[in-house]
Amino acid sequence: MTGYFITFEGGEGAGKTSILQLTANRLRKDGYDVITTREPGGIEIAEKIRSIILDPAHTAMDGRTEALLYAAARRQHLVEKVLPALSSGKLVLCDRFIDSSLTYQGYARELGMDEVYQMNQFAIENCMPDLTLFFDIQPEEGLKRILANKSREQNRLDLEKLNFHKKVYEGYQLLMDKFSKRIFQIDATPSIKEVELATYNRIKTFINSKK
Amino acid sequence: MTGYFITFEGGEGAGKTSILQLTANRLRKDGYDVITTREPGGIEIAEKIRSIILDPAHTAMDGRTEALLYAAARRQHLVEKVLPALSSGKLVLCDRFIDSSLTYQGYARELGMDEVYQMNQFAIENCMPDLTLFFDIQPEEGLKRILANKSREQNRLDLEKLNFHKKVYEGYQLLMDKFSKRIFQIDATPSIKEVELATYNRIKTFINSKK
Repeated sequence: MTGYFITFEGGEGAGKTSILQLTANRLRKDGYDVITTREPGGIEIAEKIRSIILDPAHTAMDGRTEALLYAAARRQHLVEKVLPALSSGKLVLCDRFIDSSLTYQGYARELGMDEVYQMNQFAIENCMPDLTLFFDIQPEEGLKRILANKSREQNRLDLEKLNFHKKVYEGYQLLMDKFSKRIFQIDATPSIKEVELATYNRIKTFINSKK
Repeated sequence: MTGYFITFEGGEGAGKTSILQLTANRLRKDGYDVITTREPGGIEIAEKIRSIILDPAHTAMDGRTEALLYAAARRQHLVEKVLPALSSGKLVLCDRFIDSSLTYQGYARELGMDEVYQMNQFAIENCMPDLTLFFDIQPEEGLKRILANKSREQNRLDLEKLNFHKKVYEGYQLLMDKFSKRIFQIDATPSIKEVELATYNRIKTFINSKK
């Protein structure tokens, strides 16, 4: 693999999806060949899996079923989209990856981070991100932003209670300790321009460190 | 758990699905509280997952994606149907379970039996069958039976080549060695009456050994 695999992580309302697009545009102006994606990334099989996960009617869904479905969608997206892009030297900016499963299912739903990590290795075969940015915003503030943004479609996960989001936040803190060489914190509370600049600078620092 | 979890395994055309129903009826006449099921077992979430796996349009599906989807459907079926039945003391006869993943994905698709076993433990949490019956028929004979039975709907898996079915058969032989205390061979070549009687006798022997 010659490209770099960069993932954007954070709780709901951290703004990572918007920041990802803005940062990609700026990197393109610098001449980088960038693709932006998110799981399930428009891959037909992965989109169908995602629709099962997010269907509000599926209240009987077990936490382990959910984690396995995320891993299945991750696998297909990785094989069909991410790996080919990396092989052709692209910079891949991906909205959420394995760390989301580790904190949402492993920590917040209490399936165990190590267990979820091991199971996900079956899906990703050690293809971990080269760099991960954690967009840091307090869960209360993130939820406020979501509720204020009425144009954003709410799904089953958005409707989880504040306590769940607090646990997700705690999980990310644990991941930053565990993967301190891979995951970097980006303060997501300032203006979008400031957050975007910090994101761009962090990615440039990473790329330059590889030269 | 007070009931017993008995799984029926074998290649295509071994007749296990018919034998399972006949055996259940005979056990019921003996007074046992029997439920028959198969993955996905009418569980809505698991049925939706299965429809993704079996869709002939999904030619791009990666082998690991498929294995993860089977494990997800397995988990939901186990939690919603099998475990509650076992808890209430029922005899659960299930058409296919983890051994199918071990031989189809682990061995025949070459993902590795041990890897598929480990990943499936995330789904089943050591809830292995108490007894497994392997319906033994040569792959050539099994395929002949399928092709002769025009009323049976063919799916993507039926259309795999003979070599694949031969590998599935080899995989089951390896599993019988590995789990020799759990898996018993039933010769599936005689008449359905004979196979049914052998199946019934094997299950009775197992139940009596537990008294």
